[in-house]
Amino acid sequence: MAKIGIGIVGGGYMGKAHAVAINAVAAVFNTALRPSLETICTTTEKGAAAKAYQFGFARSTADWRVLVNDPKVEAVVIASPQNTHREIAVAAFALGKHVFCEKPLGMDLAESRIMLAAAEKSGAVHMTGFNYIRTPASQMARDIIHSGEIGCITSFRGEHTEDFLANPEEPFNWRCESRASGNMGDLSPHIINAAFALMGPIDSVMADIETVHKFRPSPDGPKLVTNDDQAQILCRFESGVMGSLFISRVATGRKMGYIYEVFGTKGALRFDGEDQNALWLYKGDAKADRQGFTKILTGPLHKDYEPFCLGPGHGTGYQDQITIEAKDFLNAIFDRKSRWPTFEDGLLVNQVIEAAFTSHNLRRWVDVKSI
Amino acid sequence: MAKIGIGIVGGGYMGKAHAVAINAVAAVFNTALRPSLETICTTTEKGAAAKAYQFGFARSTADWRVLVNDPKVEAVVIASPQNTHREIAVAAFALGKHVFCEKPLGMDLAESRIMLAAAEKSGAVHMTGFNYIRTPASQMARDIIHSGEIGCITSFRGEHTEDFLANPEEPFNWRCESRASGNMGDLSPHIINAAFALMGPIDSVMADIETVHKFRPSPDGPKLVTNDDQAQILCRFESGVMGSLFISRVATGRKMGYIYEVFGTKGALRFDGEDQNALWLYKGDAKADRQGFTKILTGPLHKDYEPFCLGPGHGTGYQDQITIEAKDFLNAIFDRKSRWPTFEDGLLVNQVIEAAFTSHNLRRWVDVKSI
Amino acid sequence: MAKIGIGIVGGGYMGKAHAVAINAVAAVFNTALRPSLETICTTTEKGAAAKAYQFGFARSTADWRVLVNDPKVEAVVIASPQNTHREIAVAAFALGKHVFCEKPLGMDLAESRIMLAAAEKSGAVHMTGFNYIRTPASQMARDIIHSGEIGCITSFRGEHTEDFLANPEEPFNWRCESRASGNMGDLSPHIINAAFALMGPIDSVMADIETVHKFRPSPDGPKLVTNDDQAQILCRFESGVMGSLFISRVATGRKMGYIYEVFGTKGALRFDGEDQNALWLYKGDAKADRQGFTKILTGPLHKDYEPFCLGPGHGTGYQDQITIEAKDFLNAIFDRKSRWPTFEDGLLVNQVIEAAFTSHNLRRWVDVKSI
Amino acid sequence: MAKIGIGIVGGGYMGKAHAVAINAVAAVFNTALRPSLETICTTTEKGAAAKAYQFGFARSTADWRVLVNDPKVEAVVIASPQNTHREIAVAAFALGKHVFCEKPLGMDLAESRIMLAAAEKSGAVHMTGFNYIRTPASQMARDIIHSGEIGCITSFRGEHTEDFLANPEEPFNWRCESRASGNMGDLSPHIINAAFALMGPIDSVMADIETVHKFRPSPDGPKLVTNDDQAQILCRFESGVMGSLFISRVATGRKMGYIYEVFGTKGALRFDGEDQNALWLYKGDAKADRQGFTKILTGPLHKDYEPFCLGPGHGTGYQDQITIEAKDFLNAIFDRKSRWPTFEDGLLVNQVIEAAFTSHNLRRWVDVKSI
Repeated sequence: MAKIGIGIVGGGYMGKAHAVAINAVAAVFNTALRPSLETICTTTEKGAAAKAYQFGFARSTADWRVLVNDPKVEAVVIASPQNTHREIAVAAFALGKHVFCEKPLGMDLAESRIMLAAAEKSGAVHMTGFNYIRTPASQMARDIIHSGEIGCITSFRGEHTEDFLANPEEPFNWRCESRASGNMGDLSPHIINAAFALMGPIDSVMADIETVHKFRPSPDGPKLVTNDDQAQILCRFESGVMGSLFISRVATGRKMGYIYEVFGTKGALRFDGEDQNALWLYKGDAKADRQGFTKILTGPLHKDYEPFCLGPGHGTGYQDQITIEAKDFLNAIFDRKSRWPTFEDGLLVNQVIEAAFTSHNLRRWVDVKSI
Repeated sequence: MAKIGIGIVGGGYMGKAHAVAINAVAAVFNTALRPSLETICTTTEKGAAAKAYQFGFARSTADWRVLVNDPKVEAVVIASPQNTHREIAVAAFALGKHVFCEKPLGMDLAESRIMLAAAEKSGAVHMTGFNYIRTPASQMARDIIHSGEIGCITSFRGEHTEDFLANPEEPFNWRCESRASGNMGDLSPHIINAAFALMGPIDSVMADIETVHKFRPSPDGPKLVTNDDQAQILCRFESGVMGSLFISRVATGRKMGYIYEVFGTKGALRFDGEDQNALWLYKGDAKADRQGFTKILTGPLHKDYEPFCLGPGHGTGYQDQITIEAKDFLNAIFDRKSRWPTFEDGLLVNQVIEAAFTSHNLRRWVDVKSI
Repeated sequence: MAKIGIGIVGGGYMGKAHAVAINAVAAVFNTALRPSLETICTTTEKGAAAKAYQFGFARSTADWRVLVNDPKVEAVVIASPQNTHREIAVAAFALGKHVFCEKPLGMDLAESRIMLAAAEKSGAVHMTGFNYIRTPASQMARDIIHSGEIGCITSFRGEHTEDFLANPEEPFNWRCESRASGNMGDLSPHIINAAFALMGPIDSVMADIETVHKFRPSPDGPKLVTNDDQAQILCRFESGVMGSLFISRVATGRKMGYIYEVFGTKGALRFDGEDQNALWLYKGDAKADRQGFTKILTGPLHKDYEPFCLGPGHGTGYQDQITIEAKDFLNAIFDRKSRWPTFEDGLLVNQVIEAAFTSHNLRRWVDVKSI
Repeated sequence: MAKIGIGIVGGGYMGKAHAVAINAVAAVFNTALRPSLETICTTTEKGAAAKAYQFGFARSTADWRVLVNDPKVEAVVIASPQNTHREIAVAAFALGKHVFCEKPLGMDLAESRIMLAAAEKSGAVHMTGFNYIRTPASQMARDIIHSGEIGCITSFRGEHTEDFLANPEEPFNWRCESRASGNMGDLSPHIINAAFALMGPIDSVMADIETVHKFRPSPDGPKLVTNDDQAQILCRFESGVMGSLFISRVATGRKMGYIYEVFGTKGALRFDGEDQNALWLYKGDAKADRQGFTKILTGPLHKDYEPFCLGPGHGTGYQDQITIEAKDFLNAIFDRKSRWPTFEDGLLVNQVIEAAFTSHNLRRWVDVKSI
């Protein structure tokens, strides 16, 4: 039995998601490589020990260096705050360890470039955590577009909207300062990645970025929010197709507004993360008086669904997306070959974000490659 | 019984819609002023006579001047091609006749300015035909936004998408030449008007306009399309709120994509013209674990619904929108006071279109008022 | 120009709907026969005069006999309370006049038999007002089923649910007494008619009928409700297919719950009156991983849509259903041949209602033909 | 660390689901009791060994007696064919082991009674596997109904429909013989259980059960199907409320048609298993012109959601339902007290099924308690 020692840095939201995925992945996918849960690292020794117990790790630490240097840890999952990604990844690659890093890859393009360089130098497997594009429905969407099933694409609209900061009375917190923790830094990567995955590279952007709620309550009175909470972006893909992105964390009522709509000469499709088990598809070649959007429910015929359930329409969930990522990471390590989305894909997202800020500041279109 | 003589110029799609509305409006709304169907004008004498018979007009003509000069015609409905609007309207106003003119008002801003000036000089009633904003659901949306029910608005997204030119094999026709007959000229006015109606004036725009299908089949071989078929626009309203518009007649699968989504600090709403009897409303003050978008079906409690049916959810349709317009036009004439949307509202739309083309050409943001 | 004099009995909800339809029908459908609005009858002379003014009738009366005997009235639309249908229809037929009668035809099966006999004896045209089945979407559904497009039908579920008496505090009114004004008498006819239209004759029924709210407030204190407000029925069609019906006027939240779902060996369809412009169709012969319910928006390619609008997805409404009925009634008169649904169809509905009550009382299955 | 040895009988669809759940449950819920994966039993030694490897069990066997008698197996999950449930459960209880048994509990009421008696005699924990009612949305529905939030319930409609045998060309298989493997035996338990969970005990039923496709292809030619594939049932609950159930495995297009609609005097709700993360709720006390069904997306505020994800609307899936069951089973064992749904709940379902067959055969209403 081929085993691989796993260490997870982070015991919060994403750390848990990856820990659960690592517990389930072999049973779900019967992977060739089986994960061995070695070390988990969180911010305190006590907290880390508690998480190790909960998630079934053999050891725990409050120092990520201990984890990275643990000889039994052969692959590192980085699910800690964004400002730690670079340092951990670079250290892990220096030891030849494989790295799965949550999005956004680095705090900015410069960091991501350092991370990608370290990954490439190491020869280890690298992967970036864009989970939302991994649903069976989104994989189907990708196949439909790439196979030409809806013809030549004529437009793309993407949206990542949530409402966790929609209430102006929501107190100031860590998300309210530093560009990397802002709306563009934190929320936009998923939908930018979706744009790449579905449409190919983005050529140029024209962005309008703002802070809707400029002050938030704090114990010391109203405190200035120093990053953005909403943005809209026009873009052109390298294919020449026009697109737009809307990213907001103040969109009241949106819980998982990971939405895209793609129109082509022979059809169209729509996906909404709030109903992740459906893809809406319009086929222009249907009989004229029977045309309409079809709500396709995912099932065993669609990628990465069957291991979770033999029944179509029975549905996969958020946690399953992470388990799919874990499967691909294990398989990539087994093959010693990085799989999409790699650190390069993570970096491309940083580049678009950078271009968007530049565009916003200059109030004009900016070529992404010029960044 | 107060009566008013009506003449309709145009016997096509919109001409018929207005003719049916004029036949039904008094019975539906019991208007103080009753329409008398005097003259209809279409392109041929024979065709006009047939339409007069079908719609119940007393007289017919192939010359709009005859109609405008008919002493029994006191109010003129202009539902003819856009390039005729100005001339007819100016002639009618010169005779002191009231004018309802289909959108877009003039071929361009200059024409609309001439038309508005003529209207104001005449003192007659003037109205522009933006029917989609007249559904009971959209009237509710407007009330919700204006009353502050969803708090301060934080973003607006509008779309007018159809697919009647989505197929590249669709032959070249009159819609494929002249800016006024293009996607921006013909489709955008409705959703620009909606943006005004719901959000107030647009301050500035940043537009990207294109011709997706650059050639279309014609008896003489591929023929160059000389106007646009798709556009995306970022905007800022005078309120400072950000917004975006997507207008396309090549959006495969969209039949009546008159869509808007409005987010506010206390709620959000969504409307889709393909289900015109529903408004989706999210209220942030609902109990935390019971929040969600509510599908409100229109009924007698909503504006302009009850005259069509006493039962909620029984639904109004496209033709009813035109009947609502007819009612407001008759009431405006009765009051001798123009009602929203007037020629001024029509002109404001032209101004935004003009600003959008300017922005596209200059590839930068353009202040609408500078146009 | 062939004209036909119309008289309408009733100036309430349905009377108005038919009056508006008669005003609009010739303009919409360009019917061979043109209606001439002769006389309207409501309960008071004053009220009738007001309605005549509003709807454009030449004369008014508070006595339906005057209307029926008016020599200029050649066709009578009966939209008065159910307990008047028989007498008016019989009188009209005796004079050879054509009759359109709102559902339910008679107060009970016996009355409907008398009415049908009178109709047949007269040789005049007769029609029953089942408007909901006249939407373009429901006409499409009927075609799909009848053409075998979804294979052999395997089950039918129908529902007519509204909530106008859902609140137990709703005061006692005329709807709360007499079987004909109850839930089965008043609401069930539409969906029973739909079952016939889509599935053919009902062979047998097994019904459970009840009065959920047994007392309602009245000025004299709680007053006993003497008819039903909810019923569920199992049935078997003559084809052998199983079906069920649910009829309720206490179904909180339902506004126009005219719903049917039909499953066949090769597909399935669903219609919901709250979104009357859509038909949901599932085709079993679609590619295995692209199957799902398609939301077909009605448009000019579907029956009786184009006269209302050339644009698909632009939508028809409740009032348009009545205009479609008016068109068919005029055409039937023009052809001197009754069209579906005739008085016979109205009578078949009475028969099922009767069978349902018998079944409920006997607590067993009842053959419809035995009634 | 309190541990409990788990054995799973069955390595198919449900066996895998439970195996994955057992792998994930401690990490997800941080249960007081931690599962130890001891033995798995499938039909062949080789197959069992492969499953043990995939799922992480220490030992494997093709003989369930070995598993039951394994001293390290303290709790048995029965996910084998229905005709094995009784024997395994009785043997496990005889050894004082806790038992989780998939639905349907026994092949018939008699078997379930034996199983319940054995469970009660043993004093061990017992639980029946009704997973669909465990979604956060269905738990919310239950709370809403039980708390009176939608008033007094006035009707219930339940449906369990799938289409895996809708195609008449689907070959004869094991599902096509024996009552227990039929539509009523296999599919109905879930929705009958939902009826109990939401509405309380069923008092009486009136059933119509059939075999739509009476023959199916087999290597020896058309073979007679000896069980049912479709049924419709009227019922009355002990509360007096009327209800209906529709159960079909030939409902073309339905993938996970676990649907219920509940109307009350103050509101209504609807759930559809094909969109398991939403509950549709109508509240009669909303402002009159703002009423409608609200689509509530489940999130951390709803039961058993937060352990899977902190983000509302991000969604749980089918596999998570099984993990919720595993959590409750572990907690029940920890407390030494069986939790809903117990074997008694499993037995109640058998009783309704039995009553339904009796009703069908006698063609009359049958009191469930008389069975």
